[in-house]
Amino acid sequence: MEENPIRIRGLTVEEYLDRVRNFHGYLAPGVVSGGFMVELACRRLPEGRLYDAISETGACLPDAIQLLTPCTIGNGWLRVLETGRFALAIYDKETGRGARAALDPGRLSAWPAVKAWALKLQAKSERDEAAILAGILAAETGLYKVEPVTVDKSRLTKMDRIFICPACGESYRAHREGRCGFCSGEVPLYTAADTPDEE
Amino acid sequence: MEENPIRIRGLTVEEYLDRVRNFHGYLAPGVVSGGFMVELACRRLPEGRLYDAISETGACLPDAIQLLTPCTIGNGWLRVLETGRFALAIYDKETGRGARAALDPGRLSAWPAVKAWALKLQAKSERDEAAILAGILAAETGLYKVEPVTVDKSRLTKMDRIFICPACGESYRAHREGRCGFCSGEVPLYTAADTPDEE
Repeated sequence: MEENPIRIRGLTVEEYLDRVRNFHGYLAPGVVSGGFMVELACRRLPEGRLYDAISETGACLPDAIQLLTPCTIGNGWLRVLETGRFALAIYDKETGRGARAALDPGRLSAWPAVKAWALKLQAKSERDEAAILAGILAAETGLYKVEPVTVDKSRLTKMDRIFICPACGESYRAHREGRCGFCSGEVPLYTAADTPDEE
Repeated sequence: MEENPIRIRGLTVEEYLDRVRNFHGYLAPGVVSGGFMVELACRRLPEGRLYDAISETGACLPDAIQLLTPCTIGNGWLRVLETGRFALAIYDKETGRGARAALDPGRLSAWPAVKAWALKLQAKSERDEAAILAGILAAETGLYKVEPVTVDKSRLTKMDRIFICPACGESYRAHREGRCGFCSGEVPLYTAADTPDEE
């Protein structure tokens, strides 16, 4: 590491860790891992193209992507499509071709603290946070596999119509008319007691 | 606006717009709206508590929440739970009680450009982007309703176990053992051609 310290999308590791602290709130091992994963995936991609991103988990990785690429949840260039795997893909908006980086459980044996964290072998209270972070930083890009993928863009449909829900009166986006996700009962977010009361 | 210009979580409107440009990539009307909505919801909440956030849409609002609160997708304090409505809720982590801000279609009639955008009455190419943004900024908090809500926290389950998928060999989080979301066919992200090839 002395001669050519690794860069994470052009940032020093310290600069990246500062961004993680500011945005994510603390130095979560998963977001630090994610930095190396984004770097690995991006190295495989030709420059000068427009890329979208997928996080296969809602945990930590979306923040690494949001910190290091133009893709955010709100601009739609990043999607969380939960397979549960600790993996991310960055792919050409147009062709769907890209690179996927994933934690490789087979590479964890040299890093017992990282392994215990990644596979949740310990209760949170028993974790050695410093050893986990030190292991992830020392391993650099060594814990992850990278592979070419083609994203099936036909699966990524956009809901581009807006309707007014006849039950709550609010506008909502959907593929077809009906009720919004709350009033239809599909996404029962709030308890019944206070939702009908409008101020 | 001259005497007491509105602040968005302590920021001037200009400061907030700068953040939007930097993070979201451009001045999306939805993220600008979201700033006023976060401000409205937060005004209803007592200080000194820990809050989580829900965005009822994946469009734009998650970025307003991520820019103005400690809640991000990756740290789990922000969840996108798609009802399709242009609404967000910020609620006490412990009690679930909070405030919900939502675009109110009834308040759009004074702002025809904003209305055409919010209800997607025009093709994207016909939109008057400057008039939309000017309307959202001039209306300030006037386009949204705010209401108290209690989030049903029992619906927000965490997947806190990790398994190794017998098909792909990767670790994944889930409620129970089986296959990861990709290998089970639930989340068919990638085309079959290149996913089995590992480098």
